[in-house]
Amino acid sequence: EYHVDWDASAAEKGGYEYFMLKEIVEQPRAVADTLLGRVGVDGTLTLDEMRLSPADLRDISKIVIIACGTSYHAGLIAKYSIEHWCRIPCEVEVASEFRYRDPILDRQTLVIAISQSGESMDTLMAVRYAREQRARVLAICNVNGSTIPRESDGVLYTHAGPEVGVAATKTFLTQLVACYLVGLYLAQVRNLKFGDEINAIIEQLANMPEQVEKVLDTVEPVRQLARSLADASTVLFLGRHVGHPVAMEGALKLKELAYMHAEAFAAGELKHGPIALIEDNLPVVVVVPSREGRSVLHDKIVSNIQEIRARGARTIVIAEEGDETVRPFADELIEIPAVPTLLQPIVATVPLQVFACELALAKGNDVDQPRNLAKSVTVE
Amino acid sequence: EYHVDWDASAAEKGGYEYFMLKEIVEQPRAVADTLLGRVGVDGTLTLDEMRLSPADLRDISKIVIIACGTSYHAGLIAKYSIEHWCRIPCEVEVASEFRYRDPILDRQTLVIAISQSGESMDTLMAVRYAREQRARVLAICNVNGSTIPRESDGVLYTHAGPEVGVAATKTFLTQLVACYLVGLYLAQVRNLKFGDEINAIIEQLANMPEQVEKVLDTVEPVRQLARSLADASTVLFLGRHVGHPVAMEGALKLKELAYMHAEAFAAGELKHGPIALIEDNLPVVVVVPSREGRSVLHDKIVSNIQEIRARGARTIVIAEEGDETVRPFADELIEIPAVPTLLQPIVATVPLQVFACELALAKGNDVDQPRNLAKSVTVE
Repeated sequence: EYHVDWDASAAEKGGYEYFMLKEIVEQPRAVADTLLGRVGVDGTLTLDEMRLSPADLRDISKIVIIACGTSYHAGLIAKYSIEHWCRIPCEVEVASEFRYRDPILDRQTLVIAISQSGESMDTLMAVRYAREQRARVLAICNVNGSTIPRESDGVLYTHAGPEVGVAATKTFLTQLVACYLVGLYLAQVRNLKFGDEINAIIEQLANMPEQVEKVLDTVEPVRQLARSLADASTVLFLGRHVGHPVAMEGALKLKELAYMHAEAFAAGELKHGPIALIEDNLPVVVVVPSREGRSVLHDKIVSNIQEIRARGARTIVIAEEGDETVRPFADELIEIPAVPTLLQPIVATVPLQVFACELALAKGNDVDQPRNLAKSVTVE
Repeated sequence: EYHVDWDASAAEKGGYEYFMLKEIVEQPRAVADTLLGRVGVDGTLTLDEMRLSPADLRDISKIVIIACGTSYHAGLIAKYSIEHWCRIPCEVEVASEFRYRDPILDRQTLVIAISQSGESMDTLMAVRYAREQRARVLAICNVNGSTIPRESDGVLYTHAGPEVGVAATKTFLTQLVACYLVGLYLAQVRNLKFGDEINAIIEQLANMPEQVEKVLDTVEPVRQLARSLADASTVLFLGRHVGHPVAMEGALKLKELAYMHAEAFAAGELKHGPIALIEDNLPVVVVVPSREGRSVLHDKIVSNIQEIRARGARTIVIAEEGDETVRPFADELIEIPAVPTLLQPIVATVPLQVFACELALAKGNDVDQPRNLAKSVTVE
């Protein structure tokens, strides 16, 4: 087991019945802390613990992200922003499979290893394998001085503080922030964006704690909805683009905490099989992309919502506030603040965390210690 | 809708109550037909309809496979063999998501589009997008002269014959064969393997119809097992390495035909969340890798089987004949012939098709026309 070296006071429940409840509301601060001190006096993005030199990073021709569980979902989201901002091809791999499929790595490969504890054995073994193949390794971790950062070429720490609940919440949001910072940093050192362009995105990120706070302030109806679904046997999740990994994270949270069969699909895959599952009253959570950022995707997912509703599904729609186009087809509408396309996962994930947590509580489950699970998986 | 231009006689049920039952048993012949005439008089692999020149193929630095549904699973399996044999990095993408994430393509990218009908709209749109970006496109299709092959730079036809059942069976196995042939052909034109090495693998492929026949001859207990599970609400599937997409395909078949919640996991991800789902009598199908090919993976999955069984799961284990190590932990053991590691999906998929088909029949479902699904998805 690993050792958490923060103040004991930070690991107290602070009036909440469960750590997880506290950790969910701590997310605005965790996001702000992970952003803190990243911009230098000259206005450029500075990642202190990034021991990889700009020359090293300019040399990279491919990125491979390795992670497990929730961290894997952060990696899937990171792929979109890194490829969009940097045009470096980026693969995302489940750490436990990575080593065994003869991955193609060389000195120009940057491996990004994401692990909250920094001790996930599968990820650690993948890091060692990657370094043997001479790839450069950057760790994104929450626990200072843990094994994965120590064995990597560079590290970006998330500053989420201690997370006691087994199901990751604030560490996931801060992993997303760390991934965005890595993407922007790569864009900066490779001269792919002007300073003002990078600063504009950092400003957007700096605005996220406030947006997450807004979600938390308006999330009570999600709690009620979750309690009303305590007897459902299954919930499906749909998403597209960055909303697909968000849907996957929502499904994983429900599995972990409520022990319910919850599966996420890329909405476009629905008609290639999963739509056969849709039946009367099946709850389906749909994460709707921003209308401005990806209007084609937005319209396609609205027609997906109509399709499943016509087949009886109970649609639970997460959409931007003011998106009136989805309202007629949403049995339940969960509004989130409008934010830039690539950053939507930061706000869209939060209601899904609350949903899973509350549903599990309604079932009488211990959300801090779900059955069969450990916080840090230190065996392969 | 597309037009199937085979003999009407080939599209008759031939004594079977459902086309799907007939199509499952036609698999040995379909696999043999797809292999037919691929070796030229000089003993080299020859792909007649491959309009891409050896020079073009030597120029490729990256492969992107795009597909939907079952074809996507064929693509996931193809990645393993292509990367193993050719050392060309290979990404596999759901076609409906591909265009919308700003994929990085250039003249050195080979896009492989897999579609049974050659008319899947999402795949077709992805092909058009890829060609606009000047990538080279190779189609793997079953319907002669359909749109995707016509719009691609080259094509490899599977010779599965007409498939009437909506859930793909023989077209999946022949897609796998086509993918192996593409991998070997790339290895040949790029001089990565000696002629005798390639011929040895072609020999192994030529042996597959007989192995599939063996599976079909011994599959009756799987039918009985399936009927006994008609009242189960959920079945989980686990796999590793090439067995992971096989597990995904098994889960998809069960969704499509039996409308059951069936989800597949990479076995190594189990302890990062999904293990919370394991409870008394939950049926879990586990695809066990060959002991010889990947002994580490084999041993890890055997310990996964022990873990889930200790938590009450009913383990349904698909393993190589003679693999005595799994027997003590298998509530049900389905033996398949020992075949080379990368080719195992050809034999391991068959019992899963039979399992889903029989379970759906026991539920009284029409396996040729599952609810909500169309054979060829010609809308986006």
